[in-house]
Amino acid sequence: MIAWNRYGKSRVRLVKLDRSAEPHRLVDLTIDVQLEGAFAPVYEGHNRLCLATDTMKNTVYALARQRPIDHIENFGAQLAAHFVGKPAVTSARITVAEHPWVHIQGSNERHPHAFHRPGGECWTAVVATTNNQQPTTTVQSGVRDLVVMKTSDSSFSGFPRDVYTTLPDTEDRILATSITADWMYRSGTSDFAARTRIRSALMDAFASHQSRSVQHTLAAMGHRALEACRDIDEITIRLPNRHHLLVDLAPFGLDNPNEVFVATDEPFGLIEGTIRR
Amino acid sequence: MIAWNRYGKSRVRLVKLDRSAEPHRLVDLTIDVQLEGAFAPVYEGHNRLCLATDTMKNTVYALARQRPIDHIENFGAQLAAHFVGKPAVTSARITVAEHPWVHIQGSNERHPHAFHRPGGECWTAVVATTNNQQPTTTVQSGVRDLVVMKTSDSSFSGFPRDVYTTLPDTEDRILATSITADWMYRSGTSDFAARTRIRSALMDAFASHQSRSVQHTLAAMGHRALEACRDIDEITIRLPNRHHLLVDLAPFGLDNPNEVFVATDEPFGLIEGTIRR
Amino acid sequence: MIAWNRYGKSRVRLVKLDRSAEPHRLVDLTIDVQLEGAFAPVYEGHNRLCLATDTMKNTVYALARQRPIDHIENFGAQLAAHFVGKPAVTSARITVAEHPWVHIQGSNERHPHAFHRPGGECWTAVVATTNNQQPTTTVQSGVRDLVVMKTSDSSFSGFPRDVYTTLPDTEDRILATSITADWMYRSGTSDFAARTRIRSALMDAFASHQSRSVQHTLAAMGHRALEACRDIDEITIRLPNRHHLLVDLAPFGLDNPNEVFVATDEPFGLIEGTIRR
Amino acid sequence: MIAWNRYGKSRVRLVKLDRSAEPHRLVDLTIDVQLEGAFAPVYEGHNRLCLATDTMKNTVYALARQRPIDHIENFGAQLAAHFVGKPAVTSARITVAEHPWVHIQGSNERHPHAFHRPGGECWTAVVATTNNQQPTTTVQSGVRDLVVMKTSDSSFSGFPRDVYTTLPDTEDRILATSITADWMYRSGTSDFAARTRIRSALMDAFASHQSRSVQHTLAAMGHRALEACRDIDEITIRLPNRHHLLVDLAPFGLDNPNEVFVATDEPFGLIEGTIRR
Repeated sequence: MIAWNRYGKSRVRLVKLDRSAEPHRLVDLTIDVQLEGAFAPVYEGHNRLCLATDTMKNTVYALARQRPIDHIENFGAQLAAHFVGKPAVTSARITVAEHPWVHIQGSNERHPHAFHRPGGECWTAVVATTNNQQPTTTVQSGVRDLVVMKTSDSSFSGFPRDVYTTLPDTEDRILATSITADWMYRSGTSDFAARTRIRSALMDAFASHQSRSVQHTLAAMGHRALEACRDIDEITIRLPNRHHLLVDLAPFGLDNPNEVFVATDEPFGLIEGTIRR
Repeated sequence: MIAWNRYGKSRVRLVKLDRSAEPHRLVDLTIDVQLEGAFAPVYEGHNRLCLATDTMKNTVYALARQRPIDHIENFGAQLAAHFVGKPAVTSARITVAEHPWVHIQGSNERHPHAFHRPGGECWTAVVATTNNQQPTTTVQSGVRDLVVMKTSDSSFSGFPRDVYTTLPDTEDRILATSITADWMYRSGTSDFAARTRIRSALMDAFASHQSRSVQHTLAAMGHRALEACRDIDEITIRLPNRHHLLVDLAPFGLDNPNEVFVATDEPFGLIEGTIRR
Repeated sequence: MIAWNRYGKSRVRLVKLDRSAEPHRLVDLTIDVQLEGAFAPVYEGHNRLCLATDTMKNTVYALARQRPIDHIENFGAQLAAHFVGKPAVTSARITVAEHPWVHIQGSNERHPHAFHRPGGECWTAVVATTNNQQPTTTVQSGVRDLVVMKTSDSSFSGFPRDVYTTLPDTEDRILATSITADWMYRSGTSDFAARTRIRSALMDAFASHQSRSVQHTLAAMGHRALEACRDIDEITIRLPNRHHLLVDLAPFGLDNPNEVFVATDEPFGLIEGTIRR
Repeated sequence: MIAWNRYGKSRVRLVKLDRSAEPHRLVDLTIDVQLEGAFAPVYEGHNRLCLATDTMKNTVYALARQRPIDHIENFGAQLAAHFVGKPAVTSARITVAEHPWVHIQGSNERHPHAFHRPGGECWTAVVATTNNQQPTTTVQSGVRDLVVMKTSDSSFSGFPRDVYTTLPDTEDRILATSITADWMYRSGTSDFAARTRIRSALMDAFASHQSRSVQHTLAAMGHRALEACRDIDEITIRLPNRHHLLVDLAPFGLDNPNEVFVATDEPFGLIEGTIRR
């Protein structure tokens, strides 16, 4: 006999934007739905009572479109109330993790639609000394895993279309990435505090750029970094494209004006380039 | 100026089945596509030459449908040849990681359409001693992260449909999971070698079951485990549903008779239950 | 023949404190050492030229004691210069990752010897609705993975000593942890913004406490959180003890007055408790 | 008030060898100790009852030396019984995860003191096509994360000693690593099934080699791989040294004749080399 059971959908990744006014608001959640109830027939092979976990996922996105998400506690309660009303369900448990984002801070004020997610970022350096006659040393510095997102000023259109192309042109999409950048200092440099200026330049350029592609923004970031520091001649930037896919809510009679997205981990685009002075 | 650049799609997850004869063949790959070439205009905001990374992903799945995958080296070469023929591309680099699966081994022979992916599995035990007047001890054992997949004998249909349901009924799907199971031994048990029999029972039941849902298979596995060991009265099983989604190849004029899948990490269904004697 | 070779020590974890003045300074690094050179005899079994990777690790800690670490680029260069002077070495490559910490910010000013490492932190909520006659809902909120360290005001002494005890009493140690806390709101609460006050209370209590053990600090944190929010009656806190072990530099003729530490991942102490009003 | 509490040591990594007869036996465990009890005074700053978690770790290793570990359930019960006898403890909970190793299988029989830990291994390939006049293609194949250990026939001695050297010479140590190897096929090769022979060659060479260093074994593995496949001219091998440190049991009046080890994750030695025909 089935003595206890629980089932549901885990790790539903939801990003909801409110772009009705500036500054934009951004909510980034990971949600688990778990139901308990009189589901014994399901364990015997009868699915009449088994709400599909795929339906649970759809419900999360559809409710996210229809309800404001002020506090995760309230949104969780609305989801729980929805699911506990389904046949056979005796208990619905909603677990939410909210990933904080902060507006990118410019020189004077916070940017209205560019964000930074603190976490995991670190500074890097690679120093190599080679022993030819007299030792020579190269110094490379960098920043790694600087996570940013912009919710306006990003398009991707006009790219070539072949038989395997299904992506539509878009003039307005989310652009999210995790910046890794490395630069080699000129021999003899000692102003290693420059990394702070370079980091700011990368962030500012990302925030303010009218992006036509990740490549386009990468170049803008690189040029800005070169302006910020006289001691470097080139910078290599690596930008994974953390795709935020617009959820198709049409099957539920809902539109989705760039508001409800699923954040995906894989696959991801990966754009790399070296900008030279 | 742009001194060097490279771009592409990383971590395209491809599972391809050959079910034309038994035993089934299963190929599980993670693929990265990287292109180099004369893409300077893209970095200035002109996308005419910028093959979308989404198109690269589609191409991987479409070619997987049309070509046999015997060796990853050959499949990689076919992808590289495809992409190097695109305008502006001077070099295409395909990186493939192949994740090995082995047929589940029954008492006499290997199962024709059930698989095991070695790796990460471990045995677990939780022993708790409580000090009331005289100490009492409970012994729980288990197995964790036992990864299995079956390529036949799994359906999911007849589940309730509400306004948020889009999942179609299916009589034939991939069922993949990572088994975690725990059982409490009766007081005084000393035959802890039973765990090997329980593990076999779980694997055998998974392989041979005519599954109408993950829940249905969980119950079958639990009952078989109870049969395999007299010293336990119940077993708790936890089965994440590692969804393998059929790729829609219709936009490319191709059918997909349960052959080409994308393996996804999240979201996942999570089914838990305790089977009692 | 050996066509190319490189060897070294990876992931040397170094934390260096400067407590000579307030505010304390804290440097947290992960260092890789890689050497290339005329090491062919080593591959044939002759170790006369093979500087042990264990020696490389020791060298990192010993040099960290003797040199200021202002910029990782300079410290890396000093390490590279040291290793490139060894017999057979033609090139030394030092890779450093610096993990940023910031002083905990109190109401008026930053704390002189308590730190916060941004990253990975998230807000959590678990909402459960049960369907008994009329539905009842419980709301639990929390914070997860809030990483903090204090470099003063932490001791651990007077604990029981048995035959397996080797840890000496200490009146001055690093205390580092990753705070996870959960609290259940009273039924009917709607002020979910309280989480910000609770988070501040946890941080402040951690920073200002004269800690005699992790348990002692956990209780202080819990009491402060209860004061910060009238809508909760208890809070459960989970504090892994991220041990920072003082490096023994005596074999190198150096003292180590609580300055050079190795940060360890495992094993770790884990302290959990529920503080009730 | 403290309403509930629990504390202990998590992730104690224990490897125990039985080399009293061939084939050697190897037990690889990760252990958590958790105590509950009348510890309220500890939360008020009085440590008289607070058994240090460091003492718990020591106890695990000391008991591992003195007791046979046949089943983790029995070893867990012995630890629980030990800790529940301490003052104030009302309950001791021991959680054990056992990581399975299997003897490396040679052509005829399993190797008596070389082991393989299944898990995480995958095959890799990198195919690059370049478009110069006529396209040229290079094919590199490899294996990644093949985890192996040998419990005899490994020494490390005679290395140079400088002021920072503390490592003693040893004629008998554990050698554990995770093999990653890559080789480039000659142009026109089509026998990609060679990878299986190369993998066997790497494993066999690792198992049978009289190792004087990781480098020494790397070279032996590379030469054996070149013998196994005529279609390659060189192979690059990367061997992290997964250090197993002998636990010092002398403070407890116990010897440790290469029997009880702590398995460490970081730092690790990293040895890389290319062997050319």
